[in-house]
Amino acid sequence: MKAVQYREVGKGPEIVEIDVPEPGPGQIRLKVTAAGLCHSDWFVMDLPEEQYTYGLPLTLGHEGAGIADKLGAGVTGITVGESYAIYGPWGCGVCRNCAEGKENYCTRAAELGIAPPGLGAPGAMAEYVIVDDARHLTPLGDLDPVETVSLTDAGLTPYHAIKAAQHKLFPGATALVLGVGGLGHVGIQIIRAISEATVIAVDVSAEKLSLATEVGAHHTVVSGPDAAARIRELTGGVGADAVFDFVGVQPTIDTARASVAVDGYIHIVGIGGGLLPTGFFSTPFGAAVRAPYWGSRSELIEVLDLARTGAVSVHVERYGIEDAVEAYTRLHHGAVRGRAVVVP
Amino acid sequence: MKAVQYREVGKGPEIVEIDVPEPGPGQIRLKVTAAGLCHSDWFVMDLPEEQYTYGLPLTLGHEGAGIADKLGAGVTGITVGESYAIYGPWGCGVCRNCAEGKENYCTRAAELGIAPPGLGAPGAMAEYVIVDDARHLTPLGDLDPVETVSLTDAGLTPYHAIKAAQHKLFPGATALVLGVGGLGHVGIQIIRAISEATVIAVDVSAEKLSLATEVGAHHTVVSGPDAAARIRELTGGVGADAVFDFVGVQPTIDTARASVAVDGYIHIVGIGGGLLPTGFFSTPFGAAVRAPYWGSRSELIEVLDLARTGAVSVHVERYGIEDAVEAYTRLHHGAVRGRAVVVP
Amino acid sequence: MKAVQYREVGKGPEIVEIDVPEPGPGQIRLKVTAAGLCHSDWFVMDLPEEQYTYGLPLTLGHEGAGIADKLGAGVTGITVGESYAIYGPWGCGVCRNCAEGKENYCTRAAELGIAPPGLGAPGAMAEYVIVDDARHLTPLGDLDPVETVSLTDAGLTPYHAIKAAQHKLFPGATALVLGVGGLGHVGIQIIRAISEATVIAVDVSAEKLSLATEVGAHHTVVSGPDAAARIRELTGGVGADAVFDFVGVQPTIDTARASVAVDGYIHIVGIGGGLLPTGFFSTPFGAAVRAPYWGSRSELIEVLDLARTGAVSVHVERYGIEDAVEAYTRLHHGAVRGRAVVVP
Amino acid sequence: MKAVQYREVGKGPEIVEIDVPEPGPGQIRLKVTAAGLCHSDWFVMDLPEEQYTYGLPLTLGHEGAGIADKLGAGVTGITVGESYAIYGPWGCGVCRNCAEGKENYCTRAAELGIAPPGLGAPGAMAEYVIVDDARHLTPLGDLDPVETVSLTDAGLTPYHAIKAAQHKLFPGATALVLGVGGLGHVGIQIIRAISEATVIAVDVSAEKLSLATEVGAHHTVVSGPDAAARIRELTGGVGADAVFDFVGVQPTIDTARASVAVDGYIHIVGIGGGLLPTGFFSTPFGAAVRAPYWGSRSELIEVLDLARTGAVSVHVERYGIEDAVEAYTRLHHGAVRGRAVVVP
Repeated sequence: MKAVQYREVGKGPEIVEIDVPEPGPGQIRLKVTAAGLCHSDWFVMDLPEEQYTYGLPLTLGHEGAGIADKLGAGVTGITVGESYAIYGPWGCGVCRNCAEGKENYCTRAAELGIAPPGLGAPGAMAEYVIVDDARHLTPLGDLDPVETVSLTDAGLTPYHAIKAAQHKLFPGATALVLGVGGLGHVGIQIIRAISEATVIAVDVSAEKLSLATEVGAHHTVVSGPDAAARIRELTGGVGADAVFDFVGVQPTIDTARASVAVDGYIHIVGIGGGLLPTGFFSTPFGAAVRAPYWGSRSELIEVLDLARTGAVSVHVERYGIEDAVEAYTRLHHGAVRGRAVVVP
Repeated sequence: MKAVQYREVGKGPEIVEIDVPEPGPGQIRLKVTAAGLCHSDWFVMDLPEEQYTYGLPLTLGHEGAGIADKLGAGVTGITVGESYAIYGPWGCGVCRNCAEGKENYCTRAAELGIAPPGLGAPGAMAEYVIVDDARHLTPLGDLDPVETVSLTDAGLTPYHAIKAAQHKLFPGATALVLGVGGLGHVGIQIIRAISEATVIAVDVSAEKLSLATEVGAHHTVVSGPDAAARIRELTGGVGADAVFDFVGVQPTIDTARASVAVDGYIHIVGIGGGLLPTGFFSTPFGAAVRAPYWGSRSELIEVLDLARTGAVSVHVERYGIEDAVEAYTRLHHGAVRGRAVVVP
Repeated sequence: MKAVQYREVGKGPEIVEIDVPEPGPGQIRLKVTAAGLCHSDWFVMDLPEEQYTYGLPLTLGHEGAGIADKLGAGVTGITVGESYAIYGPWGCGVCRNCAEGKENYCTRAAELGIAPPGLGAPGAMAEYVIVDDARHLTPLGDLDPVETVSLTDAGLTPYHAIKAAQHKLFPGATALVLGVGGLGHVGIQIIRAISEATVIAVDVSAEKLSLATEVGAHHTVVSGPDAAARIRELTGGVGADAVFDFVGVQPTIDTARASVAVDGYIHIVGIGGGLLPTGFFSTPFGAAVRAPYWGSRSELIEVLDLARTGAVSVHVERYGIEDAVEAYTRLHHGAVRGRAVVVP
Repeated sequence: MKAVQYREVGKGPEIVEIDVPEPGPGQIRLKVTAAGLCHSDWFVMDLPEEQYTYGLPLTLGHEGAGIADKLGAGVTGITVGESYAIYGPWGCGVCRNCAEGKENYCTRAAELGIAPPGLGAPGAMAEYVIVDDARHLTPLGDLDPVETVSLTDAGLTPYHAIKAAQHKLFPGATALVLGVGGLGHVGIQIIRAISEATVIAVDVSAEKLSLATEVGAHHTVVSGPDAAARIRELTGGVGADAVFDFVGVQPTIDTARASVAVDGYIHIVGIGGGLLPTGFFSTPFGAAVRAPYWGSRSELIEVLDLARTGAVSVHVERYGIEDAVEAYTRLHHGAVRGRAVVVP
């Protein structure tokens, strides 16, 4: 079968021909219907050799969906021929966090060598993919896999952050969204769906601010040194009760710090490498700062239900598997609008 | 192997010889080290034929522990030779509640014919028991299985109720425990361990009230028509912020209703058949009433950790499997102090 | 000044001329701009003499708004000439519930003889009203007092119930609203504003079901013996995760009980006199039942913020104070659409 | 009357004679029974002139208790002759945070010029003190004011931090306490009272670690570069679920960062000037970092209830008001064990 692999550090993705994998006991083989590209794929492929820990060759694709095709021995609850989305942040399944479905915070995954598909285990950017356990599949039903697959990361990640701050999204509250890219434009829709908070969106690009307005932001602010003052003004001096930084570079993090309200909540979601110095003389009284990671099993179910009601949708560019390298190139150059999806 | 089965409606438990079961794919066979008897076994065996829905023959035992003995194909995360407790309220594993480990509230178990061991599936009161999935096993480590096994129900059930009301167990609050039997005497220990609430225990029996004091109750009140007035007096007129009725007959439920504070919380845990008429003209403003069921996967982990710190312990009477019928008879007559455990 | 008083048990409201009251130390006099009529006024006036405990004469009006007109000694934080809404469920201000602004659950109000305006203290259905403390006033700003005043009860009461069940309003959840009258039609708007839950509305009246659709219900069901079956069908057999009974008569309570999901939440808000028998053999596993009362101080702030964003609005019939008796008569006959408001 | 004032920047506290203040409308005069000294008094007095914003002369004492002595016009709910503790972080009383009793996070205090007693308003280190509103007094009842007064800050501040992290103090969890001084030794007692978490205490001083053990810590670790490794070892590699840094200098903050678990919670309580760089490449997945401030009104009620049950007690050194300067000197030199209290 065809697969998109990262085979050599520094060389970028390649289209290769490999064997169709067989599901072992407890495993499920999906015939892939959609696999999403993500900036974090480039984060991985841009790592220097001494920091690269994901194994080679690495079949890419941590956002995946497919039709159940073959079940390993002992699999229950999965129906061959039905459509599923893959829950990506695989954990051990038995530690206390996993017992609550928060496998994204599994305390034993590293120790046990468990890694998500596309980030260690073979990913979904291939004609077939192996999923390790039935609990990592969520039924898609009638949802279009191509339009939905990105939600398994670009939807689940902001949803997890937003849900953790839901107590700060009371009526009258202000939510600040920094960065209106793949995650940010979904994040705005999620905030609008599950709260009546006022949304302020910040970006450097006028086009992205226009997208922000389109998907529901109440106010837009151009990124830059004056942004924080404008946000204070829009919030009557109080600041933003919940801040979601989907970029995570130092300038956006500085804006987050300067804009958050007393007892507010900052989630740094983007992995831009910035750091927020937190403490009594740096952040307002009681403001919490957190860098969350992906999301839980029940949160993926909820995100897909947001897609079902139409509350959340993703702008998608569609590529055949043979065009995956080109798609990755466009992504690297910031030329993708919304998310790019490979359809094998 | 020897097993304790309910084979004929109305006839009570019997010791029988049956084949040692083989674990199918995904399943685990335990060599049983302890199996607890529970009043709800008699609830089941006392049902008339037209209401009996658990299948025959039924191997009893929904409280079980054992040594992993043989793994079906595809089982991961379980080590042969190690000691485990069984999480009993099996669910589908994939619905939203199950995705959070709340399999006790699985929305699909009935539809899929999934039942707990000892309450539909073959239970732990036998030399070997089959567990359907690795996620239903929690490592016991050095904990004594005989002293611990009852916690899988008689500990988990009160813990689930108490944890759901933890916001009502603030310092200065009063917790009311109705019934100091198997569940109640564990419940008092749990409340004392995870809060600084004042505990009032109520029972008809002086011996049980003495046990209540021994395990940490601050006040004891003899059950009866004057109990509610005494509880009001002990709480300065406010009433109990959290009420746990481990009996559930109409008189205890009436005491619960008459004793709860404004905006308080009543959990009816005991299945004594009583009902609490809830509404504006019956219960104080804002008082919530709920009949919870068993507990979640992470709650079982937490209960066992309470046993590890010594915060919770159960008085146990130990029986060989050949004495199981006698043990059940004693249980039926109220002659067991604490919990009875069969050690095959 | 003119006032609407209940002066004699069984005689209904009367328009009377009384002295303009003077604010004592710590009190505020408002020049009333709007006072809402409520079914609970009739509940009070329909009580037989031996159950009537509100004092006579009673100036009606527990929903009030006005312009700050005169401040008693020591009042701070209130500006003469500005517009305020009255927070009605006055408490002692110092008990633990009051310390969190939950004065609706004050543990000392009865003992101290504290009663809400219009339900013991002189109410807002007059040209002037005295408010006991600055903390019981919430600034209205530019909000129209006539269109907003009903939210102090008919908005706050459903908001309090809905917010307490917000964890049951996750995406994919179903909210069931029983009764689409004054509270119900606001409740639907609130649920839609702060969640993405699917709303099913039930009423006996086709006109009210049409109003339900207009304000955002996804499905409507005609009240009656088949309603519960239809709700099960609409929820794929699972039932409603959160049920809000804004009627509270026995038939709606029976529908609530038959429709709630496992681990769901029923709030009985309407004071129709029905009772819900709660317990193991009556309600689904883990389903909580609660009769809440009015709301907290911060919740009133949030409800008014929902009015500010336009998320919630009330259909209002407007009357002069001299027409208040007629308005009450229309209310008694069920002839008011939405809420009736007196504008002195 | 005698008072302890800070009168000139850089000059330290002085004993002075000033007029007994009169309570205005809504205010209460207390005859002081106890006033606590706090490190933050020195933080204030050590500020250079250009950063000093508390006004001069400043009567010190933000931890205060006294007997209600004279009530201004319009005060209700306070009984002359009864004993009260002062809730210190005064807010506006009407913003959303204040409406929930979280006056420590008042959004308008700075704008309105509201400051706590002893930190702007005249404090309790005098024979009499004026409290601005009845809601800022909590009845002490039979509690000894001298032994209790420190809890209004040194108890309330850790309690607020610990309660906000209570969901991370589940059975089986580890709580890490950095610094066993005035706040830390109270913090350990609070954690033990309201949870069954395992407590690890860290300090540079053997004497303080011995105090930690005395008040309930399960493990002690000497502060230093190896502390984090030892904490990992004690937690089976997982790290601490909740970290409370009662020092807040850079070395303790570094230990906090290196010791926290995935999805854990760090509260920086001590104002030692350190900062915690928070972000994807610095802190574990999902770990939250927050610098809380003092506590809420209901939390003060709860802390005093912890004193009532005996769960929390403070070691106190007692001084007459004429010895207050000496007491402050000893405090500055780290010579006070527990807390120093002035008894006028």
